[in-house]
This record gives sequence, structure tokens and C-alpha cells, in this order.
Amino acid sequence: MKLSIERGTLLKAVSQAQSVVERRNTIPILSNVLIEAEGAAVRFRATDLDIEVLDTAPAQVHQAGATTVSAVTFHEIVRKLPDGALVELTADSTSNTLKVEAGRAQFTLATLPKEDFPVMATAEYAANFTATAGTLKRLFDKSKFAISTEETRYYLNGVYMHVADAGGQPALRCVATDGHRLARIDAPLPPKADDMPGVIVPRKTVGELRKLLEDDDAEIAVSVSETKVRFATPDITLTSKVIDGTFPDYTRVIPVGNTRKLEVDASDFARAVDRVATVSSERSRAVKLALEEDRLTLSVNAPDSGAAEEELAVSYGDEPLEIGFNAKYLLEIASQVDRENAVFLFNSAGDPTLMREGSDDSAVYVVMPMRV
Amino acid sequence: MKLSIERGTLLKAVSQAQSVVERRNTIPILSNVLIEAEGAAVRFRATDLDIEVLDTAPAQVHQAGATTVSAVTFHEIVRKLPDGALVELTADSTSNTLKVEAGRAQFTLATLPKEDFPVMATAEYAANFTATAGTLKRLFDKSKFAISTEETRYYLNGVYMHVADAGGQPALRCVATDGHRLARIDAPLPPKADDMPGVIVPRKTVGELRKLLEDDDAEIAVSVSETKVRFATPDITLTSKVIDGTFPDYTRVIPVGNTRKLEVDASDFARAVDRVATVSSERSRAVKLALEEDRLTLSVNAPDSGAAEEELAVSYGDEPLEIGFNAKYLLEIASQVDRENAVFLFNSAGDPTLMREGSDDSAVYVVMPMRV
Repeated sequence: MKLSIERGTLLKAVSQAQSVVERRNTIPILSNVLIEAEGAAVRFRATDLDIEVLDTAPAQVHQAGATTVSAVTFHEIVRKLPDGALVELTADSTSNTLKVEAGRAQFTLATLPKEDFPVMATAEYAANFTATAGTLKRLFDKSKFAISTEETRYYLNGVYMHVADAGGQPALRCVATDGHRLARIDAPLPPKADDMPGVIVPRKTVGELRKLLEDDDAEIAVSVSETKVRFATPDITLTSKVIDGTFPDYTRVIPVGNTRKLEVDASDFARAVDRVATVSSERSRAVKLALEEDRLTLSVNAPDSGAAEEELAVSYGDEPLEIGFNAKYLLEIASQVDRENAVFLFNSAGDPTLMREGSDDSAVYVVMPMRV
Repeated sequence: MKLSIERGTLLKAVSQAQSVVERRNTIPILSNVLIEAEGAAVRFRATDLDIEVLDTAPAQVHQAGATTVSAVTFHEIVRKLPDGALVELTADSTSNTLKVEAGRAQFTLATLPKEDFPVMATAEYAANFTATAGTLKRLFDKSKFAISTEETRYYLNGVYMHVADAGGQPALRCVATDGHRLARIDAPLPPKADDMPGVIVPRKTVGELRKLLEDDDAEIAVSVSETKVRFATPDITLTSKVIDGTFPDYTRVIPVGNTRKLEVDASDFARAVDRVATVSSERSRAVKLALEEDRLTLSVNAPDSGAAEEELAVSYGDEPLEIGFNAKYLLEIASQVDRENAVFLFNSAGDPTLMREGSDDSAVYVVMPMRV
């Protein structure tokens, strides 16, 4: 293998591929990136056995071939090369090395045989459709904060992407929950997505996917099978196993009969919650919301360190109510609201509370109260 | 105690004071900041028993008095208050609380009696002089990287500030070393500094001092005794114990007879060292410098992962030489050079090497070689 490639192009491709590589690997080949040169392109492939990233970049290929080198070291070298440099890569199968040359700098890296690299098996996908990057970004960005980190509830360690009925309209829906709060985000169902099986996309995949979604208008090709999900741009393909489990029936958790309605400016609300929570050093800080006509009083009582109270002018016309929440959960939910006022729908101090943006039902959040 | 103060003024004063407070304290009062209101000013005092920071800010004092509250919580609250708010502080000695009010937010914080706060004893200083912030910044910024972190060699855990003879001229000198490298930085001796005893300024104090030196032209009042050092602006006074030990005779370490002279652009050199060091994952990465006429070849050989080599055009006219250094030490030293080329003076591959900026002897660095 022998090829020349511009440093900026190389850096972009290698950065995306190497980020999937786990830093501590007991299997040496998993630390490596597979470099394959053919035609007028070079492909970089990296995997942690659950996720595979494949990145294609234009290059002058003088001699086709393939090899693998340490993803981290290779990435670091490319990163440190001067901007605009032409980089030459030459694999030597006799000495099992890859030579990296740029200007007056030259590096020789140990390689492992390309045959040892675990390329992910191709799958038959049940559904193939496209969605804009902006749509996918909204679906995953607004739901991922609620992903559970409890390893014993592995089926909650991801975002449940599936086809759902949203008030009579078919929707592409993402749901995440950790049992304390839940996010349910809908987008209009893209054409040809009807047959998509519901899949739980793992947390790490959601993070890697985010890097493909920088340009809101880009069309992302999505493929879904019972066991795998694939997201692709013209340059990058991200393939991931999905979590092998059953996502619980979340619909029973979402309250439908909550009638007490609070409307509040989301960022004013978030800042006030953040302030009053300061006096408590506990991890699960309870904030009490006391509602009276058009007035919300937030308060925190931490016997050892102090107390805090703040009033907010809000819109509220129902019976007075006192209800407590984990401050962190309230903050995370309030920070999802980016266009309109936050609307909270309460039932009683012991029942789950619903939150949405204005009257928009395409992003709905549920949070469990705490006793205060 | 009862006072009003503008939130921005309060935040600045409290930020500076609280940074000296250790996060984990077994003695509760050490987590607190002492607030004293009198006349038209409020003073904030915090300490870790080795360093004391005293910050004075203008305030409307309605009732003089003093109390102490958790520095971290108080700082967090003030930080989260809206910009431009007027903050009212009211101490209640009956309930042992401090009330913090701003707009429609109100906080009640537990206090500890002001009598328990360990105010640092005032000292008789042997020398009192002034120096510009720019001068002190240069002296400490260029030397602090060489401070030792080995606790057993406690007398190297700071910067040795003392009066020295710099080629016939009296100088204010800062020296730091960890046995592998050394930095010696000189400034013209300020008037009235002649009687200053040499003191070892601890690492943490050097860090706190840095925050007083933002404005290069500001005059800093410096006071030094055998046991304490004090730096003061009109608003802030930083008092610190000095390290109770004897700084070793560093003059013997600085080579005077090195004749082989290499001149190189410091940033080109640093970038090349950084690049070739990438191939080795070891913590003490050795870089080999091979010198021939007007040519420097940097190389690293890491048997397990690979090799790297880079050539630089330099100015060198002496006999060929091969010498090895710790890559990290070379990088740190090269990054101190900000005005001119770096000049290295070598003797042999086994002897300490001297580095300075151009022909300027007011900042001199020594680095021990490594066998390669």
C-alpha cells in the first residue's frame, strides 16, 4: 500500500474513526485502525466490536493495499503535522511497518495484519430510509439525557427508536428513561420507515452518531434490523449493534389526566431552580415548588447548611399545590425547552408530572416527584 | 452586620478569597470565609492556615459587624445571581445565620462565630518594596514549571526568591528545580529590596499570586520576612508562610563552560519535539538530538510501537554531537522562549545543558540529559 493524502482530509477521517476505539484494550487489534487504499480513495475503519465506524476520504493511491496501525498514535501524529502538508503512507509487509512521511518528518509505526481486523458482518436490514441530520439530532439530543446509567437495567441504557402513532399520525419516535424521568420525542415518519423494527440504540452509539449530524440539512441514510442500526453520510458509515432487550411499555408512565397547568419561561425557571439548589450539597437535592395563583415559590431546605427561596411570576390558575422534585432532573428537563415557554401539567404531589414546550406534543417529558 | 453590595463587585471579591479554601476540610471553620463590614467597605478573608487572602470591596454598610459562612456555597450563590443585582447581606447572631437577598431570591446560610476564624498573625517584615505585576509575573511564570512535586524534597516544592548578583548587578532572582531541570530568572533589584531574606514561596502561593498580577503595570507591594511573604494590591492582600527549609546551592548546577552552541527557532523546535515524541507511549520519553553542521535531527525509538525522525535547519558550527533528553522537559523549556531564538549550550552527552533566549542571561534554564 502506498498513497498520498492532504493532511486536513486525513485528520478529519482519522478523527472520526479513532473516537470509537476504546482506550484500554486487552485485544491489541482493537486499538488499531484498518487502512484500506483502493481506486482513488482510502478507507479508515475502527471498531469496539459493538460499533464500527468506516470513513472514506479521497487520496492518490499509488499502490492499493491494506494494513492496521494504532489508532491513537496515528491520530496524534496526523494532528501534530503542519496544516496543509501532504502526507505519504507506505506499508511495508516485510517489516510489518507503516511509514508516515510529511515534509522533513518521518514516522515508522508497527502494524498488525489486516486479516486479524474484526470487520463487522454485513446485515440484512428490514428498513432503509433517509432522514435529515436536523431531525435525527432533535430526536436524540432531546432524549439522551434521560438514558439510564444503571448497568443492571441494560435495556434502559439507550434510546428506544421506533415507529409510533402520534395522535393519529405515524411518527419516528425516540424514548429514553431511567425510571425517574422520561423523554418522548416525535418526528414525522420518513417514507419507507414503516417496517422498521423498534431498536434500543446504545448510549455510546448515540454519542458517536452526534458527530455525523453537524450539518442540519444533510441527508442521513438510516438502516435498521432487529440486531443492528446503521447511519450513513456519503463519507462516513456508523454501524452499531442494538441492545438485546425489551424496552418497557413506557406509554403507561405518561400521565394523560393531569389538569393543573403551570406555564413559565423555561430559562427563568431553570436559573431560579439552579440558584435555590445551591444551598444543599446533597446529590439528590429536592426543590419544593409551591403554586398559588400566578405565583410559583421555589424553595430548598438543607438543615445543615441553610435554606433558599425564590418567587417567580408564572401563569397558574388552578388550586394551590406543593410538590417536590430532584433539582437536577428539573434543570435537565427545563434546558430542553428552546422555543417556547415550559408547560407543566401536574396531578397531585405524588403523581408523575408532565412537561412540554408550549402546546407542542412532539416533545414530552415526564418526571417523578420527590417527597419534600 | 447588614450591608448592600453590587453583585459584580461581590463576586470578584469572593472569587479571589474562596479559591484559597481547601475543598476537603476536617476543621469546619476553614471551609468558611470571614466577612467583616465596617465604614464603607466589606472585607472577605479566607485561609488554609498556610495562605491567607484578604479582599476589600466597597459596600453600603448599614450596620457594622462580622460573621463567617461556607466559602464555596456563598460563592456559588453569588455567581448564580443575575448580573447587576443589588445583594443584601444580613447576619442574625441569634439564629446564627446570614441572610442573602437579591431581587425575589433569598438564602439563609448557617454561620460559625467570627471568633473561631484563624486570622493569620501579623508579622514584622525585614523588607518592604514594590515591583510591577509584569516583573513578578515574569519571575514566577518562567520558573514555576520546574518546581518539584516530590513531597520528600519539600524544600524544592516552591520558587526560591532571593537577592543575587547577576553579572555585577544586584537582581531579584527566582529559581526553581526538581533535580532534572532548573529555571533561574532575574529582574533588576527594586529599591529597598536589598535586605530581603531569601524565601521559598510554596507552589500553591505561586498559583494564588498569579491572580493578583493580571494588569502588568500595577504596582504590587511585596513584604518579606524569614517566615512569611506578602503580596498586596490596593484591594487584595495575599499572605503566605514560606517553606521552612534551605534551598540547595543551585549555582553549582548551572554549567559555565559549555561551548557547543545551537541556535534554533523555539516554536519550530517545540513542534518537532512534540511530533517525534508521539510514537512513544512511555511517560519518560527520550528524544535524541543529533547535531551536525547547521542540521539538527530529532529522533525517537520506541521498540514496541515504532520510530520517528525529523530534521530541522539550525545554526550549529561545532563538532557533531548526539545527546538525549526527556521530551516533556525539552517542550516545557522551549515553551518559555517568547521573544528570540532558543540558544542551547552543550558540553558532552553526559553533562547538563544550558538554554537561554538569544543572548539574554536574565532567564536561564538547565536540563539534565538522558541516556539514549
